[in-house]
Amino acid sequence: MKTKAKSSFARKDLLGIEELGRAEIIEILDTARSCKEVIERDIKSVPILRGKTVVNLFFENSTRTRTSFELAARRLSADVINFDIATSSVAKGEALLDTVETIQALGANYIVMRHSSSGAPHFLAPAVRASVINAGDGEHEHPTQALLDAFTIREAFGSVEGRRVAIVGDILHSRVARSNIFLLKKLGAEVTLIGPPTLVPNTFEHFGVRVVHTLKEGLRDADVIYLLRIQMERQRTNLFPSVDEYQLLYGLTSERLAYANPRAIVMHPGPVNRGVELSRDVMAMDRTLIAEQVTNGVAVRMAVFYMLQGARENA
Amino acid sequence: MKTKAKSSFARKDLLGIEELGRAEIIEILDTARSCKEVIERDIKSVPILRGKTVVNLFFENSTRTRTSFELAARRLSADVINFDIATSSVAKGEALLDTVETIQALGANYIVMRHSSSGAPHFLAPAVRASVINAGDGEHEHPTQALLDAFTIREAFGSVEGRRVAIVGDILHSRVARSNIFLLKKLGAEVTLIGPPTLVPNTFEHFGVRVVHTLKEGLRDADVIYLLRIQMERQRTNLFPSVDEYQLLYGLTSERLAYANPRAIVMHPGPVNRGVELSRDVMAMDRTLIAEQVTNGVAVRMAVFYMLQGARENA
Amino acid sequence: MKTKAKSSFARKDLLGIEELGRAEIIEILDTARSCKEVIERDIKSVPILRGKTVVNLFFENSTRTRTSFELAARRLSADVINFDIATSSVAKGEALLDTVETIQALGANYIVMRHSSSGAPHFLAPAVRASVINAGDGEHEHPTQALLDAFTIREAFGSVEGRRVAIVGDILHSRVARSNIFLLKKLGAEVTLIGPPTLVPNTFEHFGVRVVHTLKEGLRDADVIYLLRIQMERQRTNLFPSVDEYQLLYGLTSERLAYANPRAIVMHPGPVNRGVELSRDVMAMDRTLIAEQVTNGVAVRMAVFYMLQGARENA
Repeated sequence: MKTKAKSSFARKDLLGIEELGRAEIIEILDTARSCKEVIERDIKSVPILRGKTVVNLFFENSTRTRTSFELAARRLSADVINFDIATSSVAKGEALLDTVETIQALGANYIVMRHSSSGAPHFLAPAVRASVINAGDGEHEHPTQALLDAFTIREAFGSVEGRRVAIVGDILHSRVARSNIFLLKKLGAEVTLIGPPTLVPNTFEHFGVRVVHTLKEGLRDADVIYLLRIQMERQRTNLFPSVDEYQLLYGLTSERLAYANPRAIVMHPGPVNRGVELSRDVMAMDRTLIAEQVTNGVAVRMAVFYMLQGARENA
Repeated sequence: MKTKAKSSFARKDLLGIEELGRAEIIEILDTARSCKEVIERDIKSVPILRGKTVVNLFFENSTRTRTSFELAARRLSADVINFDIATSSVAKGEALLDTVETIQALGANYIVMRHSSSGAPHFLAPAVRASVINAGDGEHEHPTQALLDAFTIREAFGSVEGRRVAIVGDILHSRVARSNIFLLKKLGAEVTLIGPPTLVPNTFEHFGVRVVHTLKEGLRDADVIYLLRIQMERQRTNLFPSVDEYQLLYGLTSERLAYANPRAIVMHPGPVNRGVELSRDVMAMDRTLIAEQVTNGVAVRMAVFYMLQGARENA
Repeated sequence: MKTKAKSSFARKDLLGIEELGRAEIIEILDTARSCKEVIERDIKSVPILRGKTVVNLFFENSTRTRTSFELAARRLSADVINFDIATSSVAKGEALLDTVETIQALGANYIVMRHSSSGAPHFLAPAVRASVINAGDGEHEHPTQALLDAFTIREAFGSVEGRRVAIVGDILHSRVARSNIFLLKKLGAEVTLIGPPTLVPNTFEHFGVRVVHTLKEGLRDADVIYLLRIQMERQRTNLFPSVDEYQLLYGLTSERLAYANPRAIVMHPGPVNRGVELSRDVMAMDRTLIAEQVTNGVAVRMAVFYMLQGARENA
């Protein structure tokens, strides 16, 4: 991997897909391809972030995403600190901005942040010199998830443009869905949202996507079937009746796969509720790319660090 | 340390002592001797696992064992990730196999696993390309503990063969005892188990060991006295009456040491309940090798990684 | 950074400021200046502790201080292990000395220790070969905090000697205050303690400091205003009435800053209770050096490791 001579990417932070341009997205995805070659090599690290410090600041637990960022940063030779919120003074009521300023004063160059409040990283980023990467903010965005998903679609089909992507589940509350919708539209995919009207209201059509309420209709000719994780704790609300009923209407089984393009791939951001969003036999199919998504997540996060570091050095 | 030209060791995983041959055990112990030289040097690391990722996946807490594996892996220049179960989606009911597949997809080459279910690592190992190391499974095995114990006996006496080893305590529920019995028998030691009939039933004689119920009889001519940790929470059961009574019958005191060989060494897997399994004066004796066992644990775990890596490269 | 040809520093441990001589303190602070240059460079690490293992052993939670020590050790290329007390056998009642001996047997060269009992590190240090660094013991000392504070004063004024330092708050229960008083007196500062008689009894005058009970009197001509963190849980006791009343009497506002030297700097060990010890406008002032203290903490802790390592090599 060499630093590219010329790059359109000049951002200090990665906060969301909404504000990225098509060229920026393409450049991240192209860079991720080189990063994936690095992690498939025997010696997996490159010195891009040597001497730099990455702090994981996760206000919501996510061992998978945190580990993915940690491995991506280490592959680039960064020092990684997992700042433990549960036992820190944040728990004692310290102001968020004070925490972030402390982390920066300790020497952080990158702050990877997950927070339950939509917009928290957008609020903090302008206040610190460190680069802020949004690892999920409330129901707003989860940009690196959308990037790794697009990377996986590109690997399967060569490009995202013109692909028919069906996203199934609780679109309304999903930052994964929002970031994916932004990204897929920017790269020219046709997006269909599938779910009950409580979780997929027709107002989503304003994003330039199709909204349907049955799998049969929504999966027709789909190239990509993207299943969102059901939040079990939502059962108690009026939003959907029960897991059994959800599975009956929106669970992907091998029979229902037949509605889609015969070459269609199946994706899920993980962790899967086995037998709910996907049946066990679909999970085991070669076209189900959940493990590839995880692997690609490390590559895409390396690419994000790489692009931000390039922008810092050119700034 | 150089990779050996020829090795009989061709395993992908280290799951238990039961399935290892004598030659494999000897080769691990010989390799551990070179590893111990490495950790006694000023610069303690070698590049055997550079670019490789080791994930500690502990479903039961054990800071000591986890730290020992972490240091062993780092001495070999690996990246180490402690996958935090308590805050991961495993806690939300994710299937164990899905967790392990995710960890592999993130890039893990080695998964060090502790689990409360006997056989959990044996179930997972064939399903993943990563090497699985059993760091304790239920009441089944704890192979690296037995290896470090044998290493310690070899350091004290030159070899394990022909040594009289007395193991004292709750044999019935101890994975440490099971792994030690397998290993000691394979290397030709004479093993005596000591404890009340509830914790050391006579059926253990099928393993080719002697079972006795008093320290006086069991320690006669012993070269090695190996005391198991008493699980305080077992007091409420019918298995043993009280800590005081246990100590009275099976606690090792300086007077009772006289039953054994005058050169006998004293071992314990730690952490010790001071004054219960051992009296304070016995703990302070030079022949009590508990700290040596801890040091040797790092060397033996380095050797295990080293052998597995050799097997991976030759596969 | 080069190892100095000649050093007066010959200690195995750093336990407190009380036992340090003036020359030793000056040498640490001078060394910290070189360390700060290292962390301001692009490549932030030097190989002083390569192959050495630093274990953080925190019996009280402090993510900030632990992270600061971790970063300092990594900048010197050490391996760092955070020994997790909450999940270790220490929680099961293991003796403290056994824990520390285990940590040393695992290979620790440095043990950074925080404990709620005053004197805990002083008790352990002579029993182990590893160097022990006190990261706060009960209400006794927090030596690296005082060193980083002195470093910050030196950066602002050139030297500590002759400076008028006002320390405000709960002196009685503060290890930060105790270590600062020792250090400031040794370096020739004039120290004034400010707070209600319940928290700042007149007996402190035995340390050679002035004790006053109002901000107006105490801040007169101060060069440094050092605000201690209020422990909210103390409200229920008789020691101080309420946070509101405390803020009314002892909170630093921009108006009260006028009592002090116009060039006076404002310091706080963090985390701040915003609007209590300091008003929000004072926090935002350039003369308020809280972030600088955090940055200097990494430099000073690097210097402490550096001095101890030098002493180990010359021993």
